[in-house]
Amino acid sequence: MLVNNKHYRTVWLEKSAIKMINQPLLPHKFEIYSSKSYKETANAIRTMIVRGAGAIGATAGFAMAQAVLEANEKNYKNKIKDALKTIKSTRITAQNLFYAVDRVYSLVKDEKNLKTAGKIAVDTANAIADEDADACKKIGEFGEILISDNDSILTHCNAGWLAFVDYGSALSPVYTAAKNKKKVFVYVDETRPRCQGAKLTSWELLNEKIPHAVIADNAAGFYMQQGKINIVITGADRIAANGDTANKIGTYEKAVLAKENNIPFYIAAPTSTIDVKTKTGRDIPIEERSEDEVLYMPGVDDKGRKTRVRIAPRQSRAKNPAFDVTPAKYIKGIITEKGIIKADEESISGLF
Amino acid sequence: MLVNNKHYRTVWLEKSAIKMINQPLLPHKFEIYSSKSYKETANAIRTMIVRGAGAIGATAGFAMAQAVLEANEKNYKNKIKDALKTIKSTRITAQNLFYAVDRVYSLVKDEKNLKTAGKIAVDTANAIADEDADACKKIGEFGEILISDNDSILTHCNAGWLAFVDYGSALSPVYTAAKNKKKVFVYVDETRPRCQGAKLTSWELLNEKIPHAVIADNAAGFYMQQGKINIVITGADRIAANGDTANKIGTYEKAVLAKENNIPFYIAAPTSTIDVKTKTGRDIPIEERSEDEVLYMPGVDDKGRKTRVRIAPRQSRAKNPAFDVTPAKYIKGIITEKGIIKADEESISGLF
Repeated sequence: MLVNNKHYRTVWLEKSAIKMINQPLLPHKFEIYSSKSYKETANAIRTMIVRGAGAIGATAGFAMAQAVLEANEKNYKNKIKDALKTIKSTRITAQNLFYAVDRVYSLVKDEKNLKTAGKIAVDTANAIADEDADACKKIGEFGEILISDNDSILTHCNAGWLAFVDYGSALSPVYTAAKNKKKVFVYVDETRPRCQGAKLTSWELLNEKIPHAVIADNAAGFYMQQGKINIVITGADRIAANGDTANKIGTYEKAVLAKENNIPFYIAAPTSTIDVKTKTGRDIPIEERSEDEVLYMPGVDDKGRKTRVRIAPRQSRAKNPAFDVTPAKYIKGIITEKGIIKADEESISGLF
Repeated sequence: MLVNNKHYRTVWLEKSAIKMINQPLLPHKFEIYSSKSYKETANAIRTMIVRGAGAIGATAGFAMAQAVLEANEKNYKNKIKDALKTIKSTRITAQNLFYAVDRVYSLVKDEKNLKTAGKIAVDTANAIADEDADACKKIGEFGEILISDNDSILTHCNAGWLAFVDYGSALSPVYTAAKNKKKVFVYVDETRPRCQGAKLTSWELLNEKIPHAVIADNAAGFYMQQGKINIVITGADRIAANGDTANKIGTYEKAVLAKENNIPFYIAAPTSTIDVKTKTGRDIPIEERSEDEVLYMPGVDDKGRKTRVRIAPRQSRAKNPAFDVTPAKYIKGIITEKGIIKADEESISGLF
């Protein structure tokens, strides 16, 4: 999508270096981060230089390719096994990450010729990235029919193109609707603690010239109650076989409130986010992140310099679960690249 | 309640000056603000140097007394009428404010002797403050029976003693339970955009040595779903005749989530917060505050200096409703100084 009217993807491979948009610097600074080794890339995923379901997946695929390129005849088997483990340990909830590293690994693990292995790994990682972009484009086309002219859409966190390789999942139908000349307005949950809504979704929408307002997460229910929101669309970090969906903390709250106010609540995600091996939401591990994300807020000062402020008293502690699980019963449908399906076992298994 | 083991009230009169805890400086700095005129006091209410239902009410009563003391024979009638209007315009949702200024005004408006008027105004304002503290103490005693040993309580915003003259409303039952040796744990919603939970509730709980954790507002639903929260108690800014309750933005979200998870949701408020002239929640005006509260976050830097950070992109706009209305059907009961009542017209009218 567009950054200052120029097209970018969130992540791509240049020779053996992975280039990615440095997301913690957004919206205040646009910079490309370059990672030269798979370990550096794993660290970039862990520290959220790259974040978002599809973008993590593509980056993980590229990281696996880096590991293959870094290996030599002697250490090959161990090196790629170590890489598999290291990359998988970075973000425990994200399904696309597991999907991507497993796919690259399974194709190269028994390859004897290192040059061939490298080519397979790079091609596969590139294919994962391309497929992600294509899937998101199709999600936009399928999801667009849910949006009427003059609709207001609520979204939580960032499931825009920054969270994928391109287009996004939850925002892709919005972009397609706008392209098709529908008038839309987006209520952007700021999405504490990391404020991906206020920082990333708003930045994307500004670049695409989509009218929007940032709101405190607390205000979403108010606007639903007032009849100001026509549809809620969020992304997903993992969808279980029965349709239960893990996504950014707070998604469950919006889903319950949408149901209470008779507003359709949709999940938008490529099928690579579905994990049929995970039976229900109860089986999805939930990452607990540092309490500092709650106790502090990063941003820029009045001169535009990066800094952070402490919010709570020095001695206070915080708890910080990064995701929650929205039970399938609150989800009106899942918008995938293969069409819009019901959030139930039958519809999901029918996709594969 | 205690500040570094010394007892304080949030607001009090010293001769003609109103002393109040300067709340925007908390939790990082404890300082008493002194206001010398009713106009300065009205401004302190508007800029939220003092905030919270009961504290605003008491301060408004004192401000009305200041206006009476400032008046002379010539300008008396106009002066106190201007004061009434000015003070009422500061915070449009807060019922206790209207209650306090109307009460002082009605007792002095026809008084011919200025000395007598001054004495009546000061005595009435002091009575309002004392009654607020007494009511909150009783709310603690009535509400305490709802809390069992080892319970975890969720609260939103700050309805502790800082929001009243002393004791608080939502936190008063917690303080009484702890005094009665019940083990309690408080989940503190940070309460964006102004973070009164992270800043004020946590500071109060630290001073009273009550175990607690600050959470992003988004995480409350997660902990409810996990069965970690036994009861939700919040304050109120205005309670309508039918039990619908206006309180800090996000309260409605917690009430819906509590109902969905079969967790009792209580409002704690003195009867001075009830406005029987307001028929239902739809008649309560909702204050819309500056978008900067959402776009920025104030706090302290790593050296403890007060500062703020910009979160969203420079060009992004925000919307910032300060309150929402929780329909009575989500409220299990209202904890008042006269006992715990149902949130319905019959029970409420029975109080008066």
